[in-house]
Amino acid sequence: MMSRMDPDLARRKFGDARVARLGTVGHSKMPHLVPVTFALDGDQVMIVIDHKPKTTTNLRRLRNIRENPQVALLVDHYTDDWSALWWVRADGRADIVEGGSTRDAALEKLAKKYDQYQGHRPAGPVIVVDVTRWSGWSAA
Amino acid sequence: MMSRMDPDLARRKFGDARVARLGTVGHSKMPHLVPVTFALDGDQVMIVIDHKPKTTTNLRRLRNIRENPQVALLVDHYTDDWSALWWVRADGRADIVEGGSTRDAALEKLAKKYDQYQGHRPAGPVIVVDVTRWSGWSAA
Repeated sequence: MMSRMDPDLARRKFGDARVARLGTVGHSKMPHLVPVTFALDGDQVMIVIDHKPKTTTNLRRLRNIRENPQVALLVDHYTDDWSALWWVRADGRADIVEGGSTRDAALEKLAKKYDQYQGHRPAGPVIVVDVTRWSGWSAA
Repeated sequence: MMSRMDPDLARRKFGDARVARLGTVGHSKMPHLVPVTFALDGDQVMIVIDHKPKTTTNLRRLRNIRENPQVALLVDHYTDDWSALWWVRADGRADIVEGGSTRDAALEKLAKKYDQYQGHRPAGPVIVVDVTRWSGWSAA
């Protein structure tokens, strides 16, 4: 049996995770899932696209967000000891930021969290998700 | 840089995983993500709902599937060594099976994979996903 997590705890546990899954859906109504690295700042989740903008114009997560900004992000902790399971979902609205200070700040945050982004700054746009709901569950 | 995985390898790696994330979307066009245990048989993924049917009539993943059977499932392997990253997405169509031999066979498979289901048979319906596409990526 799972029980509800306090939203502040949910956000904190989400922020500490190294990977999340981004769910988007465009006109086709086919959900699209992809694992993402991310940085959390308050109620904003920032995700960067690694490649150059030209190669990303057709990337499905970006196409879907342009068609429908409603997205969900999931962090979960699985273990074969089911009394230690937990997961957190963040529902929100996504914006695509191609450049400027918002993108710079996001890259800064990401480089602080992941060493890999320090030597190699991603060339693509940033997805900024304004989280409107934190839902966490943990094994009771 | 990630490169495409052979679909057979993708399916095998997916099947070996202990947890997947199920993405569904109903009329609201808001994607819904939840971690799930599952069993794989060929191109069918079986997921069981733990609770009694009465308490699940309003469960969002079931409501969404009734509104729109298109679903996606994701298995991913994250590590801070990014040369070992991989993930597999299964796109398909979901059916909800309330009882009968399909449900019994699914419970059998799930109990074989997860000890927890042996002593305690879940009371809820089974979600059967017919996978139409296996997409796998791994760090090159």
